[in-house]
Amino acid sequence: MKILNQLIWPKGFQSDAIKADLRSNSEKADLGWIVSDVLADAAAVFTLNQFPAAPVQLTKSTITQDQKLQALVVNSSNANSFTGMQGLKNAELEQQLVADKLALSPKVIAVSSTGIIGKQLPMDKITAGIAKLQKSQNSEIAQAIMTTDTVSKTISLDFDGMIMSGIAKGSGMIHPNMGTMLSFITTDAKIDGQLLQKLLRQLTDITFNQITIDGDTSTNDMLIVMANGQAGQEEILADSPAYETFKAALHKVMQTLAIKIAKDGEGASKLVTANVCGSQNDLAARMIAKTIVGSNLVKAAAFGEDPNWGRVIDAIGNAGVDLAAKDIQLAINHVLIISQGELLEMNSDALEQAVKSDQVTFDVSVGSGAGQGQAWGADLTYEYVKINAMYRT
Amino acid sequence: MKILNQLIWPKGFQSDAIKADLRSNSEKADLGWIVSDVLADAAAVFTLNQFPAAPVQLTKSTITQDQKLQALVVNSSNANSFTGMQGLKNAELEQQLVADKLALSPKVIAVSSTGIIGKQLPMDKITAGIAKLQKSQNSEIAQAIMTTDTVSKTISLDFDGMIMSGIAKGSGMIHPNMGTMLSFITTDAKIDGQLLQKLLRQLTDITFNQITIDGDTSTNDMLIVMANGQAGQEEILADSPAYETFKAALHKVMQTLAIKIAKDGEGASKLVTANVCGSQNDLAARMIAKTIVGSNLVKAAAFGEDPNWGRVIDAIGNAGVDLAAKDIQLAINHVLIISQGELLEMNSDALEQAVKSDQVTFDVSVGSGAGQGQAWGADLTYEYVKINAMYRT
Repeated sequence: MKILNQLIWPKGFQSDAIKADLRSNSEKADLGWIVSDVLADAAAVFTLNQFPAAPVQLTKSTITQDQKLQALVVNSSNANSFTGMQGLKNAELEQQLVADKLALSPKVIAVSSTGIIGKQLPMDKITAGIAKLQKSQNSEIAQAIMTTDTVSKTISLDFDGMIMSGIAKGSGMIHPNMGTMLSFITTDAKIDGQLLQKLLRQLTDITFNQITIDGDTSTNDMLIVMANGQAGQEEILADSPAYETFKAALHKVMQTLAIKIAKDGEGASKLVTANVCGSQNDLAARMIAKTIVGSNLVKAAAFGEDPNWGRVIDAIGNAGVDLAAKDIQLAINHVLIISQGELLEMNSDALEQAVKSDQVTFDVSVGSGAGQGQAWGADLTYEYVKINAMYRT
Repeated sequence: MKILNQLIWPKGFQSDAIKADLRSNSEKADLGWIVSDVLADAAAVFTLNQFPAAPVQLTKSTITQDQKLQALVVNSSNANSFTGMQGLKNAELEQQLVADKLALSPKVIAVSSTGIIGKQLPMDKITAGIAKLQKSQNSEIAQAIMTTDTVSKTISLDFDGMIMSGIAKGSGMIHPNMGTMLSFITTDAKIDGQLLQKLLRQLTDITFNQITIDGDTSTNDMLIVMANGQAGQEEILADSPAYETFKAALHKVMQTLAIKIAKDGEGASKLVTANVCGSQNDLAARMIAKTIVGSNLVKAAAFGEDPNWGRVIDAIGNAGVDLAAKDIQLAINHVLIISQGELLEMNSDALEQAVKSDQVTFDVSVGSGAGQGQAWGADLTYEYVKINAMYRT
């Protein structure tokens, strides 16, 4: 398994992105697509928000029919969320426009949107934009899906003669079940859609669902994987060695994109990582890790380079997991500061130095159990407040 | 029921606060007590953090024995939290010192602390401080318990010939189950401790547990009510008219203190209130209300006076309650902006003006159910980040 230096589309995939003038005062692309030469097996996970946006409702019903897709279209700047029946009609029209252009059934087209809530999609611009989309090898779609993201997020892997590539966006509203997060992963491996769906859920729990920026979950989150089999390798079957390699590749792609999203959290100046072990089970460790990186107090202390371990302890105690203080061990940026529930005063000076870094990592042991888990987030900065106090106007 | 202009201690209660030099570079009092002339019936609720501080552990075991207290001692600047066996011994010594001075059993003395986590209490200063405490009628204890609070929080009520008075502190780490919140309520009414405990739990759910500043829950939270019966009125029995009046008085005291805490949240410039109705039950309404006021995105938008109703809708959808978009009605500062799940564009200009206020109130209806609930919080400001990036150092 090798990480490639740039985004390479797997065999039989094309992409494009153009400026459909959805963004005001911007020269950035805002509409794009990914197209497979042949029907691909597909899997997806969606937001758990009670008010899923129109494209989420539509794509969910599209993909769950037979776990197949051949293309996806995505726009930024407008989320087509909380737009009622008209919003759903607009999403369906967008799906039909792409289907017509590609001479495919609308039932194999995914539709995705991100941006502001509560405005109808400008269908004249969407229609004109789709007319301009080409099948190319460019990677501009990674830029087209950005909102308050400061960098585009991509990864390509080479494994067993196959390619897997992923792009993602998302920098605010990231929390349980993938707040305002879009990610599209393509591979030329051959794998059954049902098997892919099962694997995707499993890996989502330990990657995208373990990042948090501000605790909110958007109405538009969507993660889609398409596998078109065009590398010509044998089909990947459950519990085979090839499956383990495929799983490792997908895990790597998803974890890399998730960490890139956390690191580029709105206003973030530091990546905050929590590694937890010693719990009764993995779920407990993940809950603790996520509570740490989700704590505003921990996040603000990370920004201030304040070695305030008390807040980490406080967060651990708030995770909803039964724990005993005497079992707790905590290291911050590899400096052990709590052992067997006792403060190691002698390490305080070393800790003061260690937190002056662009990464803050908490290594926590909570007992002798076999459970482990990780979570990733960002610090809480003045810039975060600025971005979010002034987003709409 | 009449709200008095200043803090008046109920009959048979005394209080005092002094400077025990626990705070560095401060002239503020940092140690205080409240003493009843006679043994009082008492009730309390405590933090649900997995690592309760030593004073929480001690006071919980003290009060649950027989629901009686005669005095409480409290210090700021040091939380005596995550301090192991030594911390527990120090809390017990503090309890004994107060008991000796008052010639009482330690079993009727509550001990409470707030401040930094992980440092042992300076027992020389605590000992010297307790020696200085007097029985007086001053209200300086309300200042002595302040940490990052900017104003002291007190209320006194006159009802049916009795007095009820409360003080509180807490401006950060306020969330479910009373993050870093201390409140002490005294009354000269006569009511059985078990009955008082039941009522206290019920009212905590709709007052202190419905405020949130930053989603964390401290290791030290404690709310104590003492009723010493010294007004000479008849004992308040369950389900009597007098009980309803007492309940209304305690609700008023608790809600007033809770809102004062929310309004004085760290760095807060605005009080944010959510009123939710129409849910299946009260719990669902409270969950929705608390999710709204707890959302960093809603809080930042409130700070920026940005009428970003999409974030409120997003928060409502994230509360873990089953809802349908078409049932949602939302007014912001009394301007209706969503009705039957549809945006009322015509009110957008009015909304822009309405959010320019030092209060932001969201009135939400989610259906035709009888459930209702409220929650209170503060906006998310640059000052919040500043305070929390630099608290310890």
